[in-house]
Amino acid sequence: MSPDFNVFQIYCKSVTTKARTGVLYLPHGNVCTPAFMPIGTLGTVKSLTMSELLATGAQILLSNTYHLWLKPGLSLLAQFQGLHQFNNWSGPILTDSGGFQIFSLRKNNITDEQGVTFTVPETGEVRLLTPEISMQIQTIINSDIALVLDSLPPEETNYNLNKEAMEKTLRWAKRCKQEWVKLHQGQWIGSTGYLGTRQNLLFGIAQGARFLDLRKQSAEALLELDFPGYSIGGMAMGPEPEESRLAQVDLQTSILEEYKPKHLLGVGTPLDIVKFVAYGIDLFDCVYPTRNARHGTLFFELDDFTYTSERILHKKFLSDSSPINPKSRFLELRTYSKSYLRHLFKTKEVLAYRLATLNNLEFYHNLMSNIRSKIETQEFDKWWHKFTFQKRP
Amino acid sequence: MSPDFNVFQIYCKSVTTKARTGVLYLPHGNVCTPAFMPIGTLGTVKSLTMSELLATGAQILLSNTYHLWLKPGLSLLAQFQGLHQFNNWSGPILTDSGGFQIFSLRKNNITDEQGVTFTVPETGEVRLLTPEISMQIQTIINSDIALVLDSLPPEETNYNLNKEAMEKTLRWAKRCKQEWVKLHQGQWIGSTGYLGTRQNLLFGIAQGARFLDLRKQSAEALLELDFPGYSIGGMAMGPEPEESRLAQVDLQTSILEEYKPKHLLGVGTPLDIVKFVAYGIDLFDCVYPTRNARHGTLFFELDDFTYTSERILHKKFLSDSSPINPKSRFLELRTYSKSYLRHLFKTKEVLAYRLATLNNLEFYHNLMSNIRSKIETQEFDKWWHKFTFQKRP
Repeated sequence: MSPDFNVFQIYCKSVTTKARTGVLYLPHGNVCTPAFMPIGTLGTVKSLTMSELLATGAQILLSNTYHLWLKPGLSLLAQFQGLHQFNNWSGPILTDSGGFQIFSLRKNNITDEQGVTFTVPETGEVRLLTPEISMQIQTIINSDIALVLDSLPPEETNYNLNKEAMEKTLRWAKRCKQEWVKLHQGQWIGSTGYLGTRQNLLFGIAQGARFLDLRKQSAEALLELDFPGYSIGGMAMGPEPEESRLAQVDLQTSILEEYKPKHLLGVGTPLDIVKFVAYGIDLFDCVYPTRNARHGTLFFELDDFTYTSERILHKKFLSDSSPINPKSRFLELRTYSKSYLRHLFKTKEVLAYRLATLNNLEFYHNLMSNIRSKIETQEFDKWWHKFTFQKRP
Repeated sequence: MSPDFNVFQIYCKSVTTKARTGVLYLPHGNVCTPAFMPIGTLGTVKSLTMSELLATGAQILLSNTYHLWLKPGLSLLAQFQGLHQFNNWSGPILTDSGGFQIFSLRKNNITDEQGVTFTVPETGEVRLLTPEISMQIQTIINSDIALVLDSLPPEETNYNLNKEAMEKTLRWAKRCKQEWVKLHQGQWIGSTGYLGTRQNLLFGIAQGARFLDLRKQSAEALLELDFPGYSIGGMAMGPEPEESRLAQVDLQTSILEEYKPKHLLGVGTPLDIVKFVAYGIDLFDCVYPTRNARHGTLFFELDDFTYTSERILHKKFLSDSSPINPKSRFLELRTYSKSYLRHLFKTKEVLAYRLATLNNLEFYHNLMSNIRSKIETQEFDKWWHKFTFQKRP
């Protein structure tokens, strides 16, 4: 570890894996890692208040640059001096750069060297997102962690397209860093650690898809740009063999400095999380727990290394008077029955989404807490192999 | 007051109006009157948990026989021994009889002497609701207060149609009482008070629309049936001159025994409530605060006798960083800004409905509490004339 680097401190390391616990020091608070970041696309985690979000165990919120740029827009966010005072989340916030949303939500967007041009569907307005603009937006949002603008390949399996996208992302990363330094009065927080006070950080994005030579090039080039942390992209793009995904992450976490925090973009299921912790990931984000909740799929811990999921709309819950989750810290989950929750889903009562979201985020944050304690008691190396999903009969 | 009648106790009376405070003793708790009953159509007040509902100041919940009959259905409610254990509301529940919903929601329903036949739109199934069936359903729901099945006139202004509906409702009231006595092992709680333990009550429904002679006949005939309380119907059917509405209620609360509780069906705005309290009403229910909340209209107390409403989607709130309601007991309403609430509404985030519903129900229950204390301090007689709605500039 670099002696000057006190953005992130590693506490405990696993012996046979790359798993580690640490603390990330950010302007709006500390984050114990490995950590999961719930998605608050428009600033809010759907159906929850910030007190509830905190009570699920959330430490850091992910929000989306693209969506916030459109709604509520920059002038309002500027007036509130950032997202924190607008949405009332006083903890750390990470924002993505907007690249992925434009890529996935907007057809007919045009990517050139300058940036991405796209049409806002509601208004027909044509907007341009460049590396510089993404930095400006994220500075207005006042994200504790901002990400560089990434260029997404139009096809996941084509080598040349992935090489181009990866190289463009690197060129954009350089421009992002330049703009960032300009916006932060010449200061740069890289390997030299952080400059007296806690400051917002800019993470680079490592790409390369399934091509290990591209993964290697991407990570090595990022090293030179000296970001204080890294996000690894391209892991939530579609089906891929398990070994291939693990190999990609393994390679990049080996190249990128061990002492810097690493975030895996858009991943994943509980099983994914446990595996990628073993491969050196510290931060995760995914719509999986919250989106599943809104569709009536709830996650439950069966025992220390087994979890399950249940479709609450299943007939078997029709008259199940047992509580939604007797182990929950939320009174409602301990007292409302599965049968009643099913009724709420059946009748599209919005309370259903809240109860299911509370359950799933509490499950996720309990999992992260369990992972951290397994690492700290040196049980992780044995435990992570056993961790599994069990379909209930 | 009848010395044996301890279902309802009157504490304080206004001198120049019929306003009074009282306590209604019900199996699931006491209700301080005048009281407002929030609407939990399907068992739940949209977007709220029961703890939140209680925290708004709610004492008693209104739920709908018709909707519960269809979803979740009787066998499930029977298994849960009623609605209370299903929806987790441990306080008193009043249910309407289903008559109004079939009338207002279902076209092509046929009313004959036996009951009302209607088609369930989702399934195409034809169902018959009779006075007896309504009593059976409400007994399964285990409502603290059940209402007799009412027959609604197809036209509000036609004398003969209203006379027919009113007379049919009286004949049905007799059948309801008979069925009720059968379902309750021969016991009847009327003027003779209540029989040792707190028991569920059946309220008669007074009708007659704008025709004072029909109002008189309806109330006088109900007296003979000796219900322990009364609901006055036909007040939420459409525009009518203010004096006419007041005269109708005035007449019927004069005829019906003073010492029995009186409920005004489906009313109303804050101004309505204050007025009808002065005309002897003890219980109110209305979708007004909750439906308005979901459409972004919030009520606020300006001072002791003035309130206002605000459309939170109005441009003027775009960048209003002041809290939604600095006087609220809810942390979220004291800390989230109007600007942020507007953003939540604009982006259709369901949290918006919850915050607005909390605000409006808290406003309504504060209003009821204010009315009760005005009566008890003998200030009501002066106060109620001044109570007014003020449109904000």
